[in-house]
Amino acid sequence: MQRTQAMTSVQPDWENFYPRPISEKTPFFSKDGRLYDCLFAQQLNRELLEHLFSTADRLRAVTQKKDGADYVSALLSDKRAMLYFVQPSTRTFMSFLNACHILGIKTSEIRDTTTSSEVKGETPEDTVRTFSSYVDMIIMRHPAPGFVEKTAWLMNRTGRPVPIVNGGSGKDQHPTQALLDMYTLHRSFGGELDGKHIVMVGDLKRGRTVRSLSYLMKNYKNVSLSFVSPRQFCMEPDILEFLKRHNIPFTETEDFKGVMKSADAIYMTRIQDEHDKSGESKAVDYSPFHFRKEHLDLIKKTCVILHPLPRRHEIEVTVDDDPRAVFWRQERNGMWARAALMAYIFGVDGKIR
Amino acid sequence: MQRTQAMTSVQPDWENFYPRPISEKTPFFSKDGRLYDCLFAQQLNRELLEHLFSTADRLRAVTQKKDGADYVSALLSDKRAMLYFVQPSTRTFMSFLNACHILGIKTSEIRDTTTSSEVKGETPEDTVRTFSSYVDMIIMRHPAPGFVEKTAWLMNRTGRPVPIVNGGSGKDQHPTQALLDMYTLHRSFGGELDGKHIVMVGDLKRGRTVRSLSYLMKNYKNVSLSFVSPRQFCMEPDILEFLKRHNIPFTETEDFKGVMKSADAIYMTRIQDEHDKSGESKAVDYSPFHFRKEHLDLIKKTCVILHPLPRRHEIEVTVDDDPRAVFWRQERNGMWARAALMAYIFGVDGKIR
Amino acid sequence: MQRTQAMTSVQPDWENFYPRPISEKTPFFSKDGRLYDCLFAQQLNRELLEHLFSTADRLRAVTQKKDGADYVSALLSDKRAMLYFVQPSTRTFMSFLNACHILGIKTSEIRDTTTSSEVKGETPEDTVRTFSSYVDMIIMRHPAPGFVEKTAWLMNRTGRPVPIVNGGSGKDQHPTQALLDMYTLHRSFGGELDGKHIVMVGDLKRGRTVRSLSYLMKNYKNVSLSFVSPRQFCMEPDILEFLKRHNIPFTETEDFKGVMKSADAIYMTRIQDEHDKSGESKAVDYSPFHFRKEHLDLIKKTCVILHPLPRRHEIEVTVDDDPRAVFWRQERNGMWARAALMAYIFGVDGKIR
Repeated sequence: MQRTQAMTSVQPDWENFYPRPISEKTPFFSKDGRLYDCLFAQQLNRELLEHLFSTADRLRAVTQKKDGADYVSALLSDKRAMLYFVQPSTRTFMSFLNACHILGIKTSEIRDTTTSSEVKGETPEDTVRTFSSYVDMIIMRHPAPGFVEKTAWLMNRTGRPVPIVNGGSGKDQHPTQALLDMYTLHRSFGGELDGKHIVMVGDLKRGRTVRSLSYLMKNYKNVSLSFVSPRQFCMEPDILEFLKRHNIPFTETEDFKGVMKSADAIYMTRIQDEHDKSGESKAVDYSPFHFRKEHLDLIKKTCVILHPLPRRHEIEVTVDDDPRAVFWRQERNGMWARAALMAYIFGVDGKIR
Repeated sequence: MQRTQAMTSVQPDWENFYPRPISEKTPFFSKDGRLYDCLFAQQLNRELLEHLFSTADRLRAVTQKKDGADYVSALLSDKRAMLYFVQPSTRTFMSFLNACHILGIKTSEIRDTTTSSEVKGETPEDTVRTFSSYVDMIIMRHPAPGFVEKTAWLMNRTGRPVPIVNGGSGKDQHPTQALLDMYTLHRSFGGELDGKHIVMVGDLKRGRTVRSLSYLMKNYKNVSLSFVSPRQFCMEPDILEFLKRHNIPFTETEDFKGVMKSADAIYMTRIQDEHDKSGESKAVDYSPFHFRKEHLDLIKKTCVILHPLPRRHEIEVTVDDDPRAVFWRQERNGMWARAALMAYIFGVDGKIR
Repeated sequence: MQRTQAMTSVQPDWENFYPRPISEKTPFFSKDGRLYDCLFAQQLNRELLEHLFSTADRLRAVTQKKDGADYVSALLSDKRAMLYFVQPSTRTFMSFLNACHILGIKTSEIRDTTTSSEVKGETPEDTVRTFSSYVDMIIMRHPAPGFVEKTAWLMNRTGRPVPIVNGGSGKDQHPTQALLDMYTLHRSFGGELDGKHIVMVGDLKRGRTVRSLSYLMKNYKNVSLSFVSPRQFCMEPDILEFLKRHNIPFTETEDFKGVMKSADAIYMTRIQDEHDKSGESKAVDYSPFHFRKEHLDLIKKTCVILHPLPRRHEIEVTVDDDPRAVFWRQERNGMWARAALMAYIFGVDGKIR
């Protein structure tokens, strides 16, 4: 998996590189026409998404029997991955870890930095380069915006790069969450996402999942969106501009009940009060943006309810038993979608059948 | 390993279910006549105990050579377990973890909850359900009484249950400790537990291992028990009632020396001062309940000395070298007994030979 | 891997054993003429070093292709190791962990002691013996001088010893760091260490790597050493005595620039201010002991630059791109050298070809 010398040598300095538009940067994170570092939801175009969905579907099918599971776990038995998670996230961590196990990838874990050599005055860049010495891939979650991208950028300048997978970077990027959300929609709709009406509900201003999902809608035809949120937490203008530019129709409303009837998918989110600056969440009545048991009678028989989890009170627990509540399956889809992504990056996706 | 729909639908609400006697509850934690969730020492009847002992014996024998070890570690190579330990317990944790490794089960670990999504306001029930998405079994230790049982109960109501193994639940249940204690007695007596005199020593009031052991004695014939403890920490009445009901003779005494001569097994325990409310342990002279080197001359040549460990000063370190001191073997027996239990739950016990 | 009864029985008490010279103690940590416990850099004689280097080289070569990697990871698939690291050291920890993965050894981890039963009043000796119950090897890092050695000593007195590998013990011993440093010199010089001029730079007084390296030089012919350090942190007299006794020529200087021109290897180290008693590091101008980009023009074309890492400012980051900067390779060499050592201890080194 050596990077061509040519690419490395033309790479600009980080300060010049970082501010560029993502579309300009993605070639630096590809290799031989394939995704190498998975950093941005925007790297997931329709072709790649559908390939990953079908890879994930095949992974599930093949591993249902023990000999299939053993076959799959031999595919990458020579690979070692490091999960470098310096921000609390048991959910994403466990999903990636078990995805590695499915593929036979051996894993090592950093789950905080207090035990790290950073205490001895090492730079974060040196720390990451150290870890990369021992493994074939780094799956990274980091609170600092751009840090995961910078790691990939640095790695690609060394003589021994390893692919970097973004497991959540600052407030901005969490591409595998976008991947699993799309995969869940794909499975819920039997592969037919075109023409669907997607309703996103909750704290749209500060939720990164709804932002990524909105971006990815440009990959599909005739999709329409509804954004349901308290006025204070409505979708940011940059996303609305993006949708207009790509001719994706959308509406904004506070009337959840009114819009849920025509929804093909309802994507619920919790209030993101960890981003509060001065308690602004407490000033909002969030209850009109909850999904209650009684709403099950209002929505379509084919409508599915998603949630990136964890939830608080946005969805009543009694809703869980309804077959249209797919958020628990969504959770599990994440593991399969991540396994598919890693199989793809290591180039064994073609061997899963 | 799908649960029948019928069973799920007749299950009552948790509030109604939890207070029922264990004997009424165990069917809900079985499947096709086999133990599915291992929650209570009371689930371990004589037939099951002896089956697990023989499974553990075969596991040890088969894995002594490398090809046998490789055969065994292929039996469950398609399975993934989560060790969810939110209460400190390195000993039990390591024992289970290495038991998983013996069987080829891949493992993920939660060893505290501070990194978990619980900080984001998720309920413990949702957290556990999340983790169950990724794995095929959860081994759980939790300080709250009933939490492990509730998890099993909840899982069994979902469309994708996974077996739950209790690694220590509150002050009450720790069934695999009981299993390994019984296995150690079994091995020490060449399989003949009937007719033996078992002496339990120490803080019998607050030690859960001596309680479980006492319960399990009803599985054997003509066993007699002696309880040796400071008056303040004597065995609780509920256990004494239980023994009377099952015609198991017992004596209570503070005279350790007097009773040790006729013992076939001496089960030592430490003082459980972590359960003190106001320093009551300090008011007790615990030294008469220590086993000293000089006692080795008083006990039978065939008598064995057990201890669930960790120890403080209850057993002098110089005793360790005596072949009758089996507590270090007991520790190792725990790993094999737990491996046997998991092999049984996953239904591969018949393949170990 | 049973120890002969004879050896155990002649072993003296710890208080008598510990103060003895290392050369007297090493036989107790060997078995059938092979290293069993790896505790001291002094156990690594030239023959063993060269055997481990060649084993490491073969490991790298064989594992380059997937079938070779799978072959190697089957060699010790029946073994389980515990990494018992009660002192922060992510670097060494990860290096050992991934070395285990290469060999197929299953691993369990203790990375601090707060979750351990030590809180329940257990002695450290009992804790370690407990852990040894479950595994076939313990890799241990511990801040207390002598603790790792004592563990090996204790284990060898039990009926079920497991080999102990020292991953860093107090301020004194870190034998696998010495091993990887020597391996890096070996690879840098194409196997020809005899006759070379090694320059060690920095806080020589308190750095344990430079001390070990100096010791190991007695294994080679016509090596000369230069020690470059601030006066306050010069090499300790015991090492200088040792060198004189073995006729190894050395010079001491503060003039880094003057001596670097004739160096075949420059071993840089950081200031060890964690050992300060009253801020003595701050009184020193450390900048004359930095390696800067401009120095690349002064050193030999064949000179290599090492550093045990982590670094602070001792080596400018822009130096990393020069092919003579081998410290990142040195890091990776550590993983391979440790894998070679463990393969040797378990006696499968002969199967790697």
